[in-house]
Amino acid sequence: MSSPVLECIPNISEGRDPAVVDRVVAAVAAVDGVTVLDHMSDTDHNRSVITFLGAPEAVLDGALALCRAAYEAIDMSRHSGAHPRFGAVDVLPLVPVRELSMDAAARYAHDLGRRIGELGVPVFFYEAAALSPERRDLAEVRRGQYEGLAERFAGGERPDAGPAQLNPRTGAIAVGARPPLIAFNVNLAGDDLVMAQRIADAVRSRTGGYECVKGMGVALPDKGQVQVSMNLTDFTRTPIHRVVETIRSEAARHGVPIVACELIGLAPLAAFEEVVRHYLQIPDFTSGQVIETHLL
Amino acid sequence: MSSPVLECIPNISEGRDPAVVDRVVAAVAAVDGVTVLDHMSDTDHNRSVITFLGAPEAVLDGALALCRAAYEAIDMSRHSGAHPRFGAVDVLPLVPVRELSMDAAARYAHDLGRRIGELGVPVFFYEAAALSPERRDLAEVRRGQYEGLAERFAGGERPDAGPAQLNPRTGAIAVGARPPLIAFNVNLAGDDLVMAQRIADAVRSRTGGYECVKGMGVALPDKGQVQVSMNLTDFTRTPIHRVVETIRSEAARHGVPIVACELIGLAPLAAFEEVVRHYLQIPDFTSGQVIETHLL
Repeated sequence: MSSPVLECIPNISEGRDPAVVDRVVAAVAAVDGVTVLDHMSDTDHNRSVITFLGAPEAVLDGALALCRAAYEAIDMSRHSGAHPRFGAVDVLPLVPVRELSMDAAARYAHDLGRRIGELGVPVFFYEAAALSPERRDLAEVRRGQYEGLAERFAGGERPDAGPAQLNPRTGAIAVGARPPLIAFNVNLAGDDLVMAQRIADAVRSRTGGYECVKGMGVALPDKGQVQVSMNLTDFTRTPIHRVVETIRSEAARHGVPIVACELIGLAPLAAFEEVVRHYLQIPDFTSGQVIETHLL
Repeated sequence: MSSPVLECIPNISEGRDPAVVDRVVAAVAAVDGVTVLDHMSDTDHNRSVITFLGAPEAVLDGALALCRAAYEAIDMSRHSGAHPRFGAVDVLPLVPVRELSMDAAARYAHDLGRRIGELGVPVFFYEAAALSPERRDLAEVRRGQYEGLAERFAGGERPDAGPAQLNPRTGAIAVGARPPLIAFNVNLAGDDLVMAQRIADAVRSRTGGYECVKGMGVALPDKGQVQVSMNLTDFTRTPIHRVVETIRSEAARHGVPIVACELIGLAPLAAFEEVVRHYLQIPDFTSGQVIETHLL
């Protein structure tokens, strides 16, 4: 009864003119079989994030419609903003939500990237869609930003699809495949920011913590709390409950309780399967036991 | 993006002839907009349970199609089986799964019941669909079973819809509305059945426990375990996690750990919202944060 679902979270280089953003979102929403979940703009970054999903073929059509609309409305040669960027559609990750492997999502990224390349735009594949190890990392793919593109191509660098030369209006695009990212915050009683940072260090990968956690300590003076603010980059390898329990244990050693946690935005149902399995001790629980999954 | 969903779990008085059960299930499945989730037969009970769901109007059509097929195929005057029963379609509960109040489900039950009554079948409304307090309880509605129906009508009792006289072929039907029922078992190490029964007593309503828990202790000699076997009759009033934590605490006082829990069959997504809220301490978590709910 179920069918494959792909999610797409393109970041476009326009966050100040709502009319432009609305036009780009409308181009996606007009594609049959695509559901737009959300879009958010940041004026400092001059950048917007759009989230949509559906059957893979519909999502690729939606992504291409988004690129066409963005390339028509946004001129990268006039863009300024605080966030690193190198294209009008700067980065376009595909996320396998249901009944899709990461390899399948990467193949869809390659298919989409070739179609975007045919529009005359240099395309770089990153993360799980990367064709070489040095292009896995988005920051490396985007190094030098828009302003550095001409020099990179002049130096002989070739994109993975599309022309090996600057398109001044569109810039370049990074098309990737990655697991769903879960934005998860843990709020702790008190104002001890040093402790919050230490606990963030305990759980994040770059300071010896869990492989798929990025994080930092943040002060929340209005609430009289501090926060461990995290991105869980692959819940199948580092599940939510394990991170929460580690933070609970580390905070308890300072005599500090968890006041509340926050899940920012959306997460896939599969991320909660392991929560149910762990705390309710149902070893073989699957989302197929949730009535609503039979309506999908 | 979401729309109302009603579930229907009719119990029919045929569990030995798969051809008859298949014909009845096929009659439901043929109705547009209805999804059959499951059907299970018990030969000792000579009874089958069918589970289907969909938009309310489609589910009522499916339920009526099921009744017609069952009344054609099953002759109650020849029925025998271990389970109490008073009709070819013995009991037909409607369960609001999504975006439906219990009152709305009860109104659908009344609508459906009147349509079944027009087939010449005496109809009794029970649980949330009951029109009087003494008909809330299914056992009371079904007292005397099929064999006692003629006497009840002769004594002046009237059904809630349909004729006040025995239909020998169809018997009567109980049409109701109720919350989804969750079958949940907790397996404990060791062979102490008295302890398992004591723990069941601690959590079930009739011995001082939680209002919406029915349960008993069961021996699992093959596993070397004992089990607290439960039905959670309304998870919105008595949530799963609270029952599990009480059992964990009671078992710990005997030095006995929970080995594993079992969720039998299906449960609605809303039942897991409170699990996530409790253990991950996300006070305002809702199923709207689950990506897949936006595909429904």
